[in-house]
Amino acid sequence: MTGTLIAVDWGTTNRRAYLLDAAGTVLDTQRDERGVKTMPTADYPAELIALRARYGDLPVVLAGMVGAARGWVEVPYLSCPAGLAELGAALHWIEPGRTAIVPGLTDPAGDVMRGEEVQLLGAAAAGLTPDTALLCQPGTHCKWARLEAGQVRRFATALTGELFALLQAHSLLAEFLTGAVADDAPFREGVQRGLAGHLATDLFRVRAAAVLGQRPAAQSASYTSGLLIGHDVAGAEIAHGEPVYVLADPHLGDLYARAVTMAGGTPVRIASQAAFVSGITRLWSARQP
Amino acid sequence: MTGTLIAVDWGTTNRRAYLLDAAGTVLDTQRDERGVKTMPTADYPAELIALRARYGDLPVVLAGMVGAARGWVEVPYLSCPAGLAELGAALHWIEPGRTAIVPGLTDPAGDVMRGEEVQLLGAAAAGLTPDTALLCQPGTHCKWARLEAGQVRRFATALTGELFALLQAHSLLAEFLTGAVADDAPFREGVQRGLAGHLATDLFRVRAAAVLGQRPAAQSASYTSGLLIGHDVAGAEIAHGEPVYVLADPHLGDLYARAVTMAGGTPVRIASQAAFVSGITRLWSARQP
Repeated sequence: MTGTLIAVDWGTTNRRAYLLDAAGTVLDTQRDERGVKTMPTADYPAELIALRARYGDLPVVLAGMVGAARGWVEVPYLSCPAGLAELGAALHWIEPGRTAIVPGLTDPAGDVMRGEEVQLLGAAAAGLTPDTALLCQPGTHCKWARLEAGQVRRFATALTGELFALLQAHSLLAEFLTGAVADDAPFREGVQRGLAGHLATDLFRVRAAAVLGQRPAAQSASYTSGLLIGHDVAGAEIAHGEPVYVLADPHLGDLYARAVTMAGGTPVRIASQAAFVSGITRLWSARQP
Repeated sequence: MTGTLIAVDWGTTNRRAYLLDAAGTVLDTQRDERGVKTMPTADYPAELIALRARYGDLPVVLAGMVGAARGWVEVPYLSCPAGLAELGAALHWIEPGRTAIVPGLTDPAGDVMRGEEVQLLGAAAAGLTPDTALLCQPGTHCKWARLEAGQVRRFATALTGELFALLQAHSLLAEFLTGAVADDAPFREGVQRGLAGHLATDLFRVRAAAVLGQRPAAQSASYTSGLLIGHDVAGAEIAHGEPVYVLADPHLGDLYARAVTMAGGTPVRIASQAAFVSGITRLWSARQP
């Protein structure tokens, strides 16, 4: 087995590098915290030299925020609908044939993504989801994408994870949001309310319930996470019984799977890394020129 | 004209003291920033001495967060429905007949207020609103109260102002939220979207619109304020043509009045200070023992 391609999922906070062979098998992978936000623009060439020193003098393809204004080079977004063939044909070449950045996607309704498109489309290409499916990728910014015929048709992003972090760090609720978040009774109560309720009021009532002794403060974090995830899932307008393919780590995946079930959908868990590798291998095969 | 009562609206950040005569006329008023959050518990007695040194050796009645756990003495909430007579009968006496704290209100659905009840009920008692009315008091935490027969029947609080401040100070949107907020076209576009849209997604799209050049970054703050206020107003479920009595400073009052109009209601502006004085005078008259 010989490596033929170095692929990097290069996000705001973290990056993960893969050494792949011609069949798309992962020969090695390493994750570190050298995300875009810690990286001065001038440092990228040295990072590429280091990657090739580690894995061999191979082509390198980069996806994610590395192609944003705050990354290495700002690469224009591709408009939906778009699939892996369109992404491969629109690679931004730093060095022709040798080093490329994957463009992000934009939804005409006014939304953007960089990096998630590789996982979402890769999941379908690998047969982990049908070609036409609703996919959910929870995180700081939760992405919801509708695929049609193997292309991203439209998508929306919810500020869910960031809102929770803001409330926990800086809000009047902060002192109540120190407990653990789990798929427990308070979480499910929060989801129920979040699916049907009114976010700005429900959030204030987290504090009120703690002050009034209606809910133990230790349960407030789980309840609030449920509220926000319920609000998020409500926005996806899941049809009754509709499968929702969830790409997430086990903890966040559990929480979203529960909320999807409570919203009437059928969650199906997908491994994010396998989806990324599938997507990046296929778009590299479709590269132009 | 001789002063007979010192009344203080003592909030988290600010306080305003009034010298009132027997007819409820304001003989003097002073505002400062000695709110509850800056005040150690041990300092309250000295503050009372200072108030009496300024205005005379008169009874003092205190309303607001001064009666919260983080204030001087934690005073139990009164349950809705409640009016000025019930508040007067439930005063917490620091010194009998001489120094009292007004209890806050709690809504059985799980909400709390301290201080706003005096303004809301005072507005109706002064004839500034009917006895049965929907009142809105915007701020860091926006209060919506339904009065029936001169009592607060139920109320809800929305975290609107605090969410805007969090987003402006700490979020990924912060760099885009530096412009002025006014009742302008971007604000109205935000309200329209907030009334019908999905908050967590709409917030993410503020950034997307700026990145994509779909909206000038200078308009983002006004638009985002509109989104949050629209979301807030949508939660109040205003009937078509229903009057909504808005107690707020001119700037915030303009913004909420616009959003109420766009939601199909009829905004009526009320002077907050006149409402407070009306409420505190009447509940003092109803004091027990």
